[in-house]
Amino acid sequence: MKTYPDCIPCFVRQSLEAARLISDDPSFHEEILRRACQIAAELDYSAPPPAMGRDIHRLIRRLSGVEDPYREAKARFNDFILGLMPGLKKQVEQSADPFETALKLAIAGNVIDFGVNINLTSSDIENAVRQALALELDKETVAQFKSSLANASRILYVGDNVGEVVFDRVFIETIKKAYATLDITFIVRGAPILNDVTLGDARQAGMHETAKVVANGSDAPGCLLDDCSEEFHNHLSRADLIISKGQGNYETLSELPHEVYFMLKAKCAVIARDIGAAQGDLLLVRKAPGEESGTLSKASSD
Amino acid sequence: MKTYPDCIPCFVRQSLEAARLISDDPSFHEEILRRACQIAAELDYSAPPPAMGRDIHRLIRRLSGVEDPYREAKARFNDFILGLMPGLKKQVEQSADPFETALKLAIAGNVIDFGVNINLTSSDIENAVRQALALELDKETVAQFKSSLANASRILYVGDNVGEVVFDRVFIETIKKAYATLDITFIVRGAPILNDVTLGDARQAGMHETAKVVANGSDAPGCLLDDCSEEFHNHLSRADLIISKGQGNYETLSELPHEVYFMLKAKCAVIARDIGAAQGDLLLVRKAPGEESGTLSKASSD
Repeated sequence: MKTYPDCIPCFVRQSLEAARLISDDPSFHEEILRRACQIAAELDYSAPPPAMGRDIHRLIRRLSGVEDPYREAKARFNDFILGLMPGLKKQVEQSADPFETALKLAIAGNVIDFGVNINLTSSDIENAVRQALALELDKETVAQFKSSLANASRILYVGDNVGEVVFDRVFIETIKKAYATLDITFIVRGAPILNDVTLGDARQAGMHETAKVVANGSDAPGCLLDDCSEEFHNHLSRADLIISKGQGNYETLSELPHEVYFMLKAKCAVIARDIGAAQGDLLLVRKAPGEESGTLSKASSD
Repeated sequence: MKTYPDCIPCFVRQSLEAARLISDDPSFHEEILRRACQIAAELDYSAPPPAMGRDIHRLIRRLSGVEDPYREAKARFNDFILGLMPGLKKQVEQSADPFETALKLAIAGNVIDFGVNINLTSSDIENAVRQALALELDKETVAQFKSSLANASRILYVGDNVGEVVFDRVFIETIKKAYATLDITFIVRGAPILNDVTLGDARQAGMHETAKVVANGSDAPGCLLDDCSEEFHNHLSRADLIISKGQGNYETLSELPHEVYFMLKAKCAVIARDIGAAQGDLLLVRKAPGEESGTLSKASSD
């Protein structure tokens, strides 16, 4: 997905929020704002939005000397969601359709995003779980998803955020129980960016016990293909099915030739419009192999 | 008032909205956004926010070749509010305290601002009138206002928007009935900027029948003192009381040494915080002569 004009004021706002999160110094805020506006003034609109996010957060790290401003908040969230894991697993196991329940929970996990809202509370997460479990997923798309999994050999599961990674783990464990021969690789970011999941965060969530975990080699809040490592591209080229979590991955992977299942909350109006959904919708969207991003078939919303 | 960091994303958003209002060409929108971000990157934060508004709208006029992109919308609004004028005057005349009623209506008039919301409807205006008439104004400030008017000779009434100018006219007529010897000069912008009132708009509203109308010589959405003409400064130096309408005038006149009555709707969070009010409040704020902007005493809100 390319960058839309409406992304620009949002970028500038996010830059200020990020600057405030790691410093109380007004001159630092002003400096970040000036540089963010400079980046926005010279932006390549044909690049996906995470390219600008990457550039701004690189700048914030460089100017502040803080390598991972979200480290504490990330660890806290991962811990909090890990505490919910036994209950989530029980919920999945005892449900009529464990696959569908775990799938809904994995969509719910996507509400955890500091890039959109840095003040999430535990009740936000409980609400998201309730909202997701109440979703009426499109039966045909769920059946298609199961059939795709049954026919796949190698899956690339592109993770998004910390905390959410615990929901992903529950979903991947559920998939593996149903489709034992599947080879699943969980992709994380190559370096800390916002609250996006990295190798260390995935390990904290125990993902390495469930899937092979591979960093994509990039510090963008998405999977900017030009930035990603050879190792990532090797996995991508071998994969016969992709599961993509969240907005940043949708923005960067929506034009792949693969069959992709996007699972996300459409937090911003621009992405919702690009998909053809309403802002705030929790979505499962299937892109058939070879299909262009414009013909995505929305599968569900509340 | 200086420019706050939170003004920057808002400027960028307003630039895009303004660009879209006068053109459907995406490349024009992109060009305006790039230039607005360039202006923001190099901004003098010590200047009041209308300085950046002025620069962006100069740019939009220059690049589009459209001298007054809001001309039609302005004339439509002025006409619409002129149609309400007989009813407004009757409401004032039949009320227990015509001064206070006309004052409340003049505050209500300040909701008409394309810079904040370009999609105002007539029901928005009716709601604002209802909301303003229900206001409990601080009795002491209203009494002080009356006393200041009784003791003043020359008043500078700094207008803000079209449409609103009709409410101002009703208020000025009411003031003149009560204080017959007062010399009232109504200040308008020196050139078209957003939906701000200019000489032509004030004439359309019949303001010249009620007060002397003088342009401030500037094309900023406020009264940037460095930009204003000698004629404006002559009037300012002779005035012993100032009535200032709206946010743009508050932002540029809050540090004057004069006694000022600010009448505005605090539409943005930054200005509300600067005043010490809540966003959305309809306000009458008195600044005593010689008082600094920081010690403004808020007089009313709903």
